[in-house]
Amino acid sequence: METVFEITEDAMQLAMIEDRIVPYAELDPVYLDRGTFFGDGVYEVVRSYDGRIFAIDEHMARFERSLREVDITGVDIADIRRRVEHAFDDASIANAKIYFHITRGSAARNHGTPADLKPNFFLTVTELGESTAKKAGGISVSTFPDWRWKRCDIKSLNLLANVLARRDAEKKGCNEAILVNDAGEITEGASSSVFMVRAAAKELVTRPLGPDILPSITRAVVLRIAEQARLRAVEQVIRPGEAAGADELFLAVTTQDIVPVVKFDQTTIGNGQPGQNTKNLIEAFRQYVK
Amino acid sequence: METVFEITEDAMQLAMIEDRIVPYAELDPVYLDRGTFFGDGVYEVVRSYDGRIFAIDEHMARFERSLREVDITGVDIADIRRRVEHAFDDASIANAKIYFHITRGSAARNHGTPADLKPNFFLTVTELGESTAKKAGGISVSTFPDWRWKRCDIKSLNLLANVLARRDAEKKGCNEAILVNDAGEITEGASSSVFMVRAAAKELVTRPLGPDILPSITRAVVLRIAEQARLRAVEQVIRPGEAAGADELFLAVTTQDIVPVVKFDQTTIGNGQPGQNTKNLIEAFRQYVK
Repeated sequence: METVFEITEDAMQLAMIEDRIVPYAELDPVYLDRGTFFGDGVYEVVRSYDGRIFAIDEHMARFERSLREVDITGVDIADIRRRVEHAFDDASIANAKIYFHITRGSAARNHGTPADLKPNFFLTVTELGESTAKKAGGISVSTFPDWRWKRCDIKSLNLLANVLARRDAEKKGCNEAILVNDAGEITEGASSSVFMVRAAAKELVTRPLGPDILPSITRAVVLRIAEQARLRAVEQVIRPGEAAGADELFLAVTTQDIVPVVKFDQTTIGNGQPGQNTKNLIEAFRQYVK
Repeated sequence: METVFEITEDAMQLAMIEDRIVPYAELDPVYLDRGTFFGDGVYEVVRSYDGRIFAIDEHMARFERSLREVDITGVDIADIRRRVEHAFDDASIANAKIYFHITRGSAARNHGTPADLKPNFFLTVTELGESTAKKAGGISVSTFPDWRWKRCDIKSLNLLANVLARRDAEKKGCNEAILVNDAGEITEGASSSVFMVRAAAKELVTRPLGPDILPSITRAVVLRIAEQARLRAVEQVIRPGEAAGADELFLAVTTQDIVPVVKFDQTTIGNGQPGQNTKNLIEAFRQYVK
């Protein structure tokens, strides 16, 4: 509904940062990032194990798909990969988390997009702490309504629903929020995939892919290594009641691969300790990333 | 799932802006805005008519509610209002669009939030172009699935679904996208409210408020002035079929108040010109803002 303005074309504009007035023409374009105004961008998180980036091909392929799905064009994906690898090399961190995003670019704030917009790239490399304690002792999770949009298969910067769910979990003393949709199904965690083990049946269960969950790379790896832990991978909807009554429960997340869950809302999972199948999967994952 | 890092605490980190490596400690905090990483913030758009900001009380009240709903604390709303008024005075633009947002603050990118985070404020003042042509001739709209999250009553920075809908409309040569939910109901436009006139019944129809639409200030004003245009305000769900067959159709949006719609997808509305009731409402609105 609004006219599209170019960034510095119109002199009759000003900006304000905190309580400081800034002439519009002098404004750093980062303040006009559509990533901030609209969450108009997509991101990836990759990690390294002992000096090597894990599953970079899969992450770059997913990133390229996300860009395509939101119609951000003019990105040389090979160049982005070179940047990621260059930054990782430069950081010299053996076990690193690499976050990067691309937004549609900087422009005066209007829903409509100027045709000649240049995408913005940003990346951070962070040392990953050890998650040994969490892996050994397990974590607590709590449920929260899944308020997210209908295209959660796109790894976009629209994550406020995830943030609010996580805040709720933290207030309850939990480490992660498990999102439950209107149909009463678990979709995924605020920043993780959810897995359940049926011990007697030797089944490893997780929700099938679809627009309501992220095609998690870690999820795919876990399904791939299930056999090594003598489990049969089953893609099936999980409801909170089943999760609470599960023999074993765990989360999959890039930065920490497999994290056992020992408490689901008020319910203790199994005997309150990570189960044997989960331990086997953690070991299989450790072998896999070597 | 991730440890919360403070911005410059950990030396083992670096950032990259485009292809340039930047030591993490030297990074401008604007690059670490949770507004960009998560859309973790809320915004308002107000406008002025002939040197006076319109409905500032209502907009500030809605902004305060948005902040509360996403649990962003530590904001002095009276101070924010002073900033808005100060920037508007400084800009000396009689008919201005004032955009402002507050994000949860800047921090290393983790879903979890450090406890001591300071919210970030940003504002722009832009001169509004005349919308006389649109008001006189009307605009075209096209429908798009409503992919947005479940809390559209919060004016948040998570607007990618709106952007994608608008992009689709623009590709079809339309000015605005009309969002249709899974139940086959119109919720609202990508950045506007939708109104329909039943001419014979003298009814002005718009969707009831709820979590799926923004409590639009312009919408509220239009409902308030309906009587002056001899229309009865009716809050009722509208489906695309009814909208396409409506006697009159228009959008309400802060920056342009009432904009007649003359084409809905492939269907011409009425005789392809703005209808008399819509014209009466535009005139009543013009009187109201005086």
